[in-house]
Amino acid sequence: MSESFRMTDLRAIVAEITEEMAAAPDRGRPASYIPPLARVDVGQFGMAVVTADGDVFTGGAADEAFSVQSVSKVFALTMALGRVGDQLWDRVGREPSGSAFNSIVQLESERGIPRNPFINAGAIVVADVNLGRGRPRESVGELVRFIRSLADDDSIAVDAEVARSESETGFRNVALANYMKSFGNLRGPVEDVLALYFGQCAVAMSCRQLAMAGRYLMAGGVNPVGGHRVVSAARARRINALMLTCGHYDASGDFAFRVGLPGKSGVGGGILAVAPGRASIAVWSPGLNAQGNSQLGTLALERLAMRTGWSVFGRMNASPG
Amino acid sequence: MSESFRMTDLRAIVAEITEEMAAAPDRGRPASYIPPLARVDVGQFGMAVVTADGDVFTGGAADEAFSVQSVSKVFALTMALGRVGDQLWDRVGREPSGSAFNSIVQLESERGIPRNPFINAGAIVVADVNLGRGRPRESVGELVRFIRSLADDDSIAVDAEVARSESETGFRNVALANYMKSFGNLRGPVEDVLALYFGQCAVAMSCRQLAMAGRYLMAGGVNPVGGHRVVSAARARRINALMLTCGHYDASGDFAFRVGLPGKSGVGGGILAVAPGRASIAVWSPGLNAQGNSQLGTLALERLAMRTGWSVFGRMNASPG
Amino acid sequence: MSESFRMTDLRAIVAEITEEMAAAPDRGRPASYIPPLARVDVGQFGMAVVTADGDVFTGGAADEAFSVQSVSKVFALTMALGRVGDQLWDRVGREPSGSAFNSIVQLESERGIPRNPFINAGAIVVADVNLGRGRPRESVGELVRFIRSLADDDSIAVDAEVARSESETGFRNVALANYMKSFGNLRGPVEDVLALYFGQCAVAMSCRQLAMAGRYLMAGGVNPVGGHRVVSAARARRINALMLTCGHYDASGDFAFRVGLPGKSGVGGGILAVAPGRASIAVWSPGLNAQGNSQLGTLALERLAMRTGWSVFGRMNASPG
Amino acid sequence: MSESFRMTDLRAIVAEITEEMAAAPDRGRPASYIPPLARVDVGQFGMAVVTADGDVFTGGAADEAFSVQSVSKVFALTMALGRVGDQLWDRVGREPSGSAFNSIVQLESERGIPRNPFINAGAIVVADVNLGRGRPRESVGELVRFIRSLADDDSIAVDAEVARSESETGFRNVALANYMKSFGNLRGPVEDVLALYFGQCAVAMSCRQLAMAGRYLMAGGVNPVGGHRVVSAARARRINALMLTCGHYDASGDFAFRVGLPGKSGVGGGILAVAPGRASIAVWSPGLNAQGNSQLGTLALERLAMRTGWSVFGRMNASPG
Repeated sequence: MSESFRMTDLRAIVAEITEEMAAAPDRGRPASYIPPLARVDVGQFGMAVVTADGDVFTGGAADEAFSVQSVSKVFALTMALGRVGDQLWDRVGREPSGSAFNSIVQLESERGIPRNPFINAGAIVVADVNLGRGRPRESVGELVRFIRSLADDDSIAVDAEVARSESETGFRNVALANYMKSFGNLRGPVEDVLALYFGQCAVAMSCRQLAMAGRYLMAGGVNPVGGHRVVSAARARRINALMLTCGHYDASGDFAFRVGLPGKSGVGGGILAVAPGRASIAVWSPGLNAQGNSQLGTLALERLAMRTGWSVFGRMNASPG
Repeated sequence: MSESFRMTDLRAIVAEITEEMAAAPDRGRPASYIPPLARVDVGQFGMAVVTADGDVFTGGAADEAFSVQSVSKVFALTMALGRVGDQLWDRVGREPSGSAFNSIVQLESERGIPRNPFINAGAIVVADVNLGRGRPRESVGELVRFIRSLADDDSIAVDAEVARSESETGFRNVALANYMKSFGNLRGPVEDVLALYFGQCAVAMSCRQLAMAGRYLMAGGVNPVGGHRVVSAARARRINALMLTCGHYDASGDFAFRVGLPGKSGVGGGILAVAPGRASIAVWSPGLNAQGNSQLGTLALERLAMRTGWSVFGRMNASPG
Repeated sequence: MSESFRMTDLRAIVAEITEEMAAAPDRGRPASYIPPLARVDVGQFGMAVVTADGDVFTGGAADEAFSVQSVSKVFALTMALGRVGDQLWDRVGREPSGSAFNSIVQLESERGIPRNPFINAGAIVVADVNLGRGRPRESVGELVRFIRSLADDDSIAVDAEVARSESETGFRNVALANYMKSFGNLRGPVEDVLALYFGQCAVAMSCRQLAMAGRYLMAGGVNPVGGHRVVSAARARRINALMLTCGHYDASGDFAFRVGLPGKSGVGGGILAVAPGRASIAVWSPGLNAQGNSQLGTLALERLAMRTGWSVFGRMNASPG
Repeated sequence: MSESFRMTDLRAIVAEITEEMAAAPDRGRPASYIPPLARVDVGQFGMAVVTADGDVFTGGAADEAFSVQSVSKVFALTMALGRVGDQLWDRVGREPSGSAFNSIVQLESERGIPRNPFINAGAIVVADVNLGRGRPRESVGELVRFIRSLADDDSIAVDAEVARSESETGFRNVALANYMKSFGNLRGPVEDVLALYFGQCAVAMSCRQLAMAGRYLMAGGVNPVGGHRVVSAARARRINALMLTCGHYDASGDFAFRVGLPGKSGVGGGILAVAPGRASIAVWSPGLNAQGNSQLGTLALERLAMRTGWSVFGRMNASPG
């Protein structure tokens, strides 16, 4: 690899960032809308980097499972594209939303077509595709098996308490789903689609598992171990493009500006980021910033991108190679 | 370079795409809001690629000057950042706008702060910064000299007829400027700021000149010829990030999805695209698609990115390197 | 009464308008969203005028029962004000909505507080108040008994087929209710509140019954027969004010301009109008105009107001008295 | 007249309210956007009532001239309807706006057609009609002469300092005008239309003059003194309807609810109200409430309507007639 740093450095960079995050004074606030998320200790931080060569570097609570929440939208989208291909784009757009993640306004002016698959409304349409004519329990199981296969780890599971809490308080998602149903953009029964959606949000994974699961996105659509093709190279690139333009709700532009990597965040405090051709990265810290993205997770990725030069927008030095 | 194609291939790829574009049936429609743009022959297409090594490959009408329009916003932003640095971001956001390029709605709900420097409102604030306490004629001259130096070409100039037409019909831009003035986000006199803005939109350049002017963005902020530093490497990356998330108005997500390169379009039919570390690219064809971006220009860039594997979101093949 | 026409004329005016409506070529289109409304014969027209002196004048199908739909919001509001008084206004506004009747946009920017009690969202909050801690079946019964007492007619009832159809297709109302629930502006269970709301919309009444039920609004809050006080005079005036400014969704201004009387329309084609101090009026014709209000009903009221001089905004002649 | 109070009482009611207003602790804050309005003493209050019989009752500073600001929109509308009749409604709507008085948002979604003639955008279109092919100075003169004739008072004039201040700071109105120009809904030069608009806002009148000028609206379109017809009775009614639904910006519903009379307010603290068939009323107190309407003026009108029973929505007692 023609990197400006050696791989032996990566271990040091991860350790260094982990140490800095442990000392960071401003750690944000955990999501408060459901009790299981609200009571998570904001002091925690974890990080895992899986390189294209298969090396894994971890720091902090990298093996602690957390609620991946919206990060699961990446895997659900990948599965839905496998089911219906580009027909998905008749029902979901590919543009940044320009407003808060639970916004219902654009749905009205755009007749029930969500702007992209990473805002809640779009992810509910994706869930409708993945549900098909099936039952939610089976569909959640199918998604979990898909994620396990991506991560090569059969211990990944749904946190039942989180799923239950989501469904008890998710009035806004119920509103979104019914609203799209009124425009004819939901085919399954609203309660089944949402059962799948809430189940998918409640998947629990560690940073290590998440970084492992994201390897196909850095590696042209192929799971590097065993060479199993998950999606075509073109589709992997496009999912990365969507993560970069839409992966952080209304702060996607800022994340691209600061970090410069495709990434998807969740209100559980996790972020999956992709350095195409180089690494799959997961960070986790439960305190969120004002936009609902992990405060320390974003900072850690900003520093990682800075120190490795992995930004997709160009190297640090002037001698490109 | 560890590319999956040899540089000798690039000449062939450019020639091939130029030939395909000459035969394309659906060429879009030219901008109609001012006469000088409306009467441009929609049959034209030009392309220029400048590599990191300094090689230049051109196709079609690559030396025909056209009205760069909003592509000039990239150079104006670069100049404004040089003047006031990151203080600019107190007055302009960095998020995709999620609505049409002349939208005034978000300005109302966000109290006169435009979403990003590439929508018209944001570019007018940038013009206000570049105007400073100066006079519009001098400020236009300063910007033209800056672009000439980037392109190493002293023949670049403003098309006076286009500038005059803009100012005679630009009621919506007058509205935007006055609206921001009412929120206190414009310091100079409205008519002076707009004189600079209309002058900047009327700069005429060829694809070759445009691709040359964009070299600093692919090369870590440095003009490769002579090694003159234009901006820091970090700033170059960040401008690229803004181009990717906000460079094509309400079709920025789609451009990222299809092309996968930072790019900035103009209603004159030109697009400047950047393959970080690899190439600065300009295409031009005056017919626009429904979103106001060059129909063939976008298609040509999509094919170039596909055939070179230059997408920032990953290679074609599964063996990253 | 110092009217510019004698009461013996009123019978002739009603007959005349009924005849004109029978011959009207442009009758609008019936509501299509539920089958029981869609299949109603658009040829029908009915009218009933109850004067302050207790005289009743009818024309056409004045005794044919139809689905009152949103007209019931007037009676539900009256009942809710009786329960909680002006505290209602902490949860619902009193301003015209300025957009379509099922709009969800304003709910977002105004944090779950509907603009007024006559848009669907506002009427759902009113239903929540009327439900209290009760069960929907009982609450529907209570409202029906209230309407019966206002109209002095015990035959008024809910159309069960309409209520069932509403609840099967009312995804947008489910969305609105859940959305307000997410802001904390709904206290009862969403499904119970909506069961009451759908039941209330499905009340079937004839023009005669509706005009009788509206007498308290023309008579300072008192049911003229027997002198039973329904609400205070001040509250009756205020309900009239709300009907005038908000009673016809996004066409309220136009109705005030053309007719000049407080009125509330329903998608079943009925309108209840009030000439304060003079008459309570009901019209019905199932064909709707572009704004969702009865095409012939509006026209009939416009002519009635013109020929009687009952507009609240002034007499026809210049000698006020 | 069949009023529930005698005319000899009206003098007492006006005196009583004037006294109460002098003692009112919460007086609001004067408009701050231009110096001549900002420095007006908030302690002042004036009131004038002209009855259908020609009696005039005044209280407080009823002869003190103040800047009528948006109240002038009523007279400008009347003049424009005289010029082009109902064709005006092709260029301006008749619906309440549902948002703040200087909102530009609805103009975007409704393609440059303002919602009604009393929001600023609508009044600018009205000014365009009144300007015709003329020059602003002459058009302002024509409007002033029209107002003088309505009020039978040749001393009414424009406050030149206010007009100048308006034009120096009215960036938002310049924005609105240019925005509508971009949609083709302004025919004259923007600066001429605005010169007329700013001149019209700067007309200075006392409560007595304003109440006199509004007599045609209570009297079926006829100036009671001399019997000169200003507009048809139907048009007078319709102007009253517009005042009721749209006369107080985003607080029109609340004003109808509380006062129950057609009214038009201005940021100078004046309100013109009409009791059809009974009285033309003007109040003035420069302190504004949160919605930009006179705090004490609204309160005074609420009490006047309560004590006289003049609400268009019904009497106080149950014996109508």
